[in-house]
Amino acid sequence: MIRFLSDNVASVHPAVFDALTAANAPDAGYDNDAISQSLNSRFSDLFETQVQAYWVATGTAANSLALATLCPPYGAIITHQESHIQNDECGAPEFYTHGAKLLLAPGDGAKLTPKAIIARAASIPADVHWAQPHALSMTNATEYGCVYSAEETAAIGEICRSKGWGLHLDGARFANAVAALDVAPAELTWRAGVDVLSFGFVKNGGMNAEALIFFKPERAAAFAAMRKRAGHLQSKGRFAAAQLCAMLDDDIWLTNAGAANAGAKLLAEAAPSRLVCPVEANEVFIRLSPTEAAALRADGFAFYDWADGEARFVVSWDQPRSEIDALVAALRKHLLS
Amino acid sequence: MIRFLSDNVASVHPAVFDALTAANAPDAGYDNDAISQSLNSRFSDLFETQVQAYWVATGTAANSLALATLCPPYGAIITHQESHIQNDECGAPEFYTHGAKLLLAPGDGAKLTPKAIIARAASIPADVHWAQPHALSMTNATEYGCVYSAEETAAIGEICRSKGWGLHLDGARFANAVAALDVAPAELTWRAGVDVLSFGFVKNGGMNAEALIFFKPERAAAFAAMRKRAGHLQSKGRFAAAQLCAMLDDDIWLTNAGAANAGAKLLAEAAPSRLVCPVEANEVFIRLSPTEAAALRADGFAFYDWADGEARFVVSWDQPRSEIDALVAALRKHLLS
Amino acid sequence: MIRFLSDNVASVHPAVFDALTAANAPDAGYDNDAISQSLNSRFSDLFETQVQAYWVATGTAANSLALATLCPPYGAIITHQESHIQNDECGAPEFYTHGAKLLLAPGDGAKLTPKAIIARAASIPADVHWAQPHALSMTNATEYGCVYSAEETAAIGEICRSKGWGLHLDGARFANAVAALDVAPAELTWRAGVDVLSFGFVKNGGMNAEALIFFKPERAAAFAAMRKRAGHLQSKGRFAAAQLCAMLDDDIWLTNAGAANAGAKLLAEAAPSRLVCPVEANEVFIRLSPTEAAALRADGFAFYDWADGEARFVVSWDQPRSEIDALVAALRKHLLS
Amino acid sequence: MIRFLSDNVASVHPAVFDALTAANAPDAGYDNDAISQSLNSRFSDLFETQVQAYWVATGTAANSLALATLCPPYGAIITHQESHIQNDECGAPEFYTHGAKLLLAPGDGAKLTPKAIIARAASIPADVHWAQPHALSMTNATEYGCVYSAEETAAIGEICRSKGWGLHLDGARFANAVAALDVAPAELTWRAGVDVLSFGFVKNGGMNAEALIFFKPERAAAFAAMRKRAGHLQSKGRFAAAQLCAMLDDDIWLTNAGAANAGAKLLAEAAPSRLVCPVEANEVFIRLSPTEAAALRADGFAFYDWADGEARFVVSWDQPRSEIDALVAALRKHLLS
Repeated sequence: MIRFLSDNVASVHPAVFDALTAANAPDAGYDNDAISQSLNSRFSDLFETQVQAYWVATGTAANSLALATLCPPYGAIITHQESHIQNDECGAPEFYTHGAKLLLAPGDGAKLTPKAIIARAASIPADVHWAQPHALSMTNATEYGCVYSAEETAAIGEICRSKGWGLHLDGARFANAVAALDVAPAELTWRAGVDVLSFGFVKNGGMNAEALIFFKPERAAAFAAMRKRAGHLQSKGRFAAAQLCAMLDDDIWLTNAGAANAGAKLLAEAAPSRLVCPVEANEVFIRLSPTEAAALRADGFAFYDWADGEARFVVSWDQPRSEIDALVAALRKHLLS
Repeated sequence: MIRFLSDNVASVHPAVFDALTAANAPDAGYDNDAISQSLNSRFSDLFETQVQAYWVATGTAANSLALATLCPPYGAIITHQESHIQNDECGAPEFYTHGAKLLLAPGDGAKLTPKAIIARAASIPADVHWAQPHALSMTNATEYGCVYSAEETAAIGEICRSKGWGLHLDGARFANAVAALDVAPAELTWRAGVDVLSFGFVKNGGMNAEALIFFKPERAAAFAAMRKRAGHLQSKGRFAAAQLCAMLDDDIWLTNAGAANAGAKLLAEAAPSRLVCPVEANEVFIRLSPTEAAALRADGFAFYDWADGEARFVVSWDQPRSEIDALVAALRKHLLS
Repeated sequence: MIRFLSDNVASVHPAVFDALTAANAPDAGYDNDAISQSLNSRFSDLFETQVQAYWVATGTAANSLALATLCPPYGAIITHQESHIQNDECGAPEFYTHGAKLLLAPGDGAKLTPKAIIARAASIPADVHWAQPHALSMTNATEYGCVYSAEETAAIGEICRSKGWGLHLDGARFANAVAALDVAPAELTWRAGVDVLSFGFVKNGGMNAEALIFFKPERAAAFAAMRKRAGHLQSKGRFAAAQLCAMLDDDIWLTNAGAANAGAKLLAEAAPSRLVCPVEANEVFIRLSPTEAAALRADGFAFYDWADGEARFVVSWDQPRSEIDALVAALRKHLLS
Repeated sequence: MIRFLSDNVASVHPAVFDALTAANAPDAGYDNDAISQSLNSRFSDLFETQVQAYWVATGTAANSLALATLCPPYGAIITHQESHIQNDECGAPEFYTHGAKLLLAPGDGAKLTPKAIIARAASIPADVHWAQPHALSMTNATEYGCVYSAEETAAIGEICRSKGWGLHLDGARFANAVAALDVAPAELTWRAGVDVLSFGFVKNGGMNAEALIFFKPERAAAFAAMRKRAGHLQSKGRFAAAQLCAMLDDDIWLTNAGAANAGAKLLAEAAPSRLVCPVEANEVFIRLSPTEAAALRADGFAFYDWADGEARFVVSWDQPRSEIDALVAALRKHLLS
């Protein structure tokens, strides 16, 4: 089987293994060890501003903890109707926020637009009977492998600023977005108004550590207690921190994401007339007939059916070029029009 | 500094590292990989009965998820007033159970007694104004390094059975209890009435994976959804599962715990008249005057002050014999009576 | 000002006042008084089956408590996108269920259809990443003043039965639906598969008491504790129970609802070409131009703008015929086409 | 049966009935009606400062909503181990605060002392593993019928101020405390540092409305949404507000409380050597042998057994003098020492 199911089971980068081994000597517990204590500095350098950076084990935890710092239990969070927080986290945002509502907006490529955001907000009367929006959550790269440019992000950030909403960026594939756009990470985050970033590493060569980045320190005030009471404060946190640092060293995070993106581009070029949306990161959505899908699977390719007549192919950072080439060839062979 | 602060920052056993490396090839996500799928079988063998076994990242998550399967939001959980779930988890049980109450009972050595349990239960009128007990949580080995024998556990199990309460065993140091008592794990768990066990590995040579063991399958029905929505379902779960399997191989878990216990025994023998309670596992609580404590610290030993005039020394699985011997000598030198 | 804003501020029926006065002598507290204890019997008679009947202060509390008995925190509830529980309760269902998700389905007149329900359910993969539906909530009469017939209700009930979902009926205007359809209450509830009914009285002549009716006793097991811990167990519960009994006496509930429905029919006949949907209960939705709306308001009529170009007129049980006639005349005068 | 069980089922004062009747004409919904809108002014006059005043249906709701405005989910609330919020609300504070912990302190007569508060606080290490105190809740008059003087309250208020904790006063029997102490309500509340007061009326002649008084407007900011999503925002709120206003008129609240207190004093004088604690409000706790308790019950008196060998007698505002006299005589007859 040749896996294009998801990047979330890819191998762990060798540098991460090396960092785990190097971190083995006992140090202070939780995040009082030297490596965890270096995270603020490491990520502040990356983002060209003072940030507070924390490790958590999963993207769902990162997203939910972020939202819980931005929205009270009686509030609401505007997000895309295809977002991971709505569809793939079994109610984690509701658990962590103690019942805040997700208010859904549409948009091509799982992208929110200013127009859709404003329309959704306008549908909420400003009275006590409706849960009032307190935050917005966007995803870059999106669940459909599209990216928000710095300008698009800033336009949403401006809406949030004017409304007084917190802005959360689900960056499970933030590295892929940065690699695709070739901009400074700052441009896609705090300079555009993002308050908190879930910065994904697991899909990109990490083992079991993601970063949560707060661009405004006051937003992080309650985070430590929230993480602890969610059982996400690991006692040997040095092993989580070590993963993140290893990925930052030598820009491995960016190199890996670039490799995955490049693979996706090759796939996209093999089926240009069948793309559901532009291929900008490492995911390729292709319209397939049942016969075509069956033929590809018969050739050994594993991928998910998505919406009606669509299939999703995800390229991982460690995907061998031979697997990409094989799928390119198979697409050219089986897709007739 | 010679660390006797806690076993929770000890090094990771080499076999765990080997297992992580061996698990690196991509496999199915979450806990659909081969190693995760082997856990039921591995732990069923260990416990001599059919169990359902899951990995989670921390002991707090294990405890809280276990309690959430045993107690509804409007219920109560009887536990010791010194228990970790009451004092060291920042309200995690309340978060995961959505507000169940912990009802506290006293007892020497942080051990619950049938008498104390029955008295606590009797103080709760059986009407709608009081949160009614639905579960009991005990810890073996306890926060004071004492152990419950199989018979003591069974006596509590019998109370729970008669009351209809679920019985949770916080086994952050379950390995130490098994090693101390030299009994089959089954004797301290399901044969004694335990429904769910938080089986700790991190303090005992693991990196960041604990096991949650359900002895009654029906108790696990909601667990998968609860773990997911808590952000504790890791996508590369194979690395968590691999740690647990590595620790079970060759009984490393038992060897490690035995080593830690043996070190504690040596410490206890150095200060027999000063012990706060019997030293049965890997923790030693010693009454120290401020002068004595200062002298030990001046010699380079790190340990926590506990209650008034008490100090806690924890021996880790990897603690060098030379460190034990050094502390033994220092205790003999500085403790005058 | 002539009020057609809502029936939720109408006057209280004189029989209710009489009942309150009659209930003044001290009796047992909470719902141990004689009147509260009579509710099961009174509502069992009405519904021609053994029910468990409880008072609560508001419809939002009734709905939320009902849903909390049907859906676990990690589950989901299918409901109409225009439903009161989604739009008008500030997240109360999420609060009471501890974060269950509402999954929205469309439908004319705020009515769910089997087709829309099945499509919504089919959009939820049966895996741990999605909150799985455990319940469905429908409203009769709907937020658009439409009614579900017994057959329509039963069709939905059959879906719920086959899926294993609990079925909640928001009956804030259940009386209006019964009056409109002229069927036995049993036909619109348990015979059609309804598990729990929020039976509204406040809009229909009560003061501050609604009924919550459980058709399956096992569904009510946790209700008493849930109501208590929500602060909805009033100590002088006899005054809540007395209101419900007074409304049942002499079928006041049905008479009042019939009167309101009749008023709405008269309004509907004054603007037949402008109706947004069929007028089946006591609400009338009329398409109005801004000029027409302004003219009506200038004549002293108070009503809400609803969706784009729609206005809502609600007739209350106690609305004087003169006010109905005045509005009829005004509609005929100001609506030109 | 002559009821000394509780004041919570007493009759409703005639002036309250009159006010309900007078409020029957439709007005704006929720708390937009004229009477509800008058509450701020009415209670500001009473407390000699600008307050925000709201109605809720029960004391449990008042307490829980108050605590939810003062303490985040990950925080803790210091309270007496005999407090109503700990023992009689089935976990309502935990429900409303989303799992905050109650930290219990001892004290005679169910009164907190500065010493006990400081000791309890000192037992909580200031680290992330412990839920940190954010609020304190005290009760005046206490569950044992004792009162805190203005000075005693201020001493606790000063601790809260210095610690940065919110201070909640459970005043289910605040009227009894004011009547007992003959001081201005301001002295027992904001002047002593109280932030939020649950001001009870139901036990004192009301039907089903309590007041929640915020002395600092910023503390009330989230209250409206919290009340709504708890299902405690009644649509015909004018009937709740009317009760409160009626009780304030002519100081009925104070007269009623004074009458109840006076009855309790008479009872206390009949058994001075048997009192569990000073009788300062309307509750009398008497040590009774089983024989004595049985004799009193045989004479027709209804009362609760409390702790071992203690019985609780509560005098209601409307208790006839003849019932007091009868109990006095019975106590004198049956109590031999």
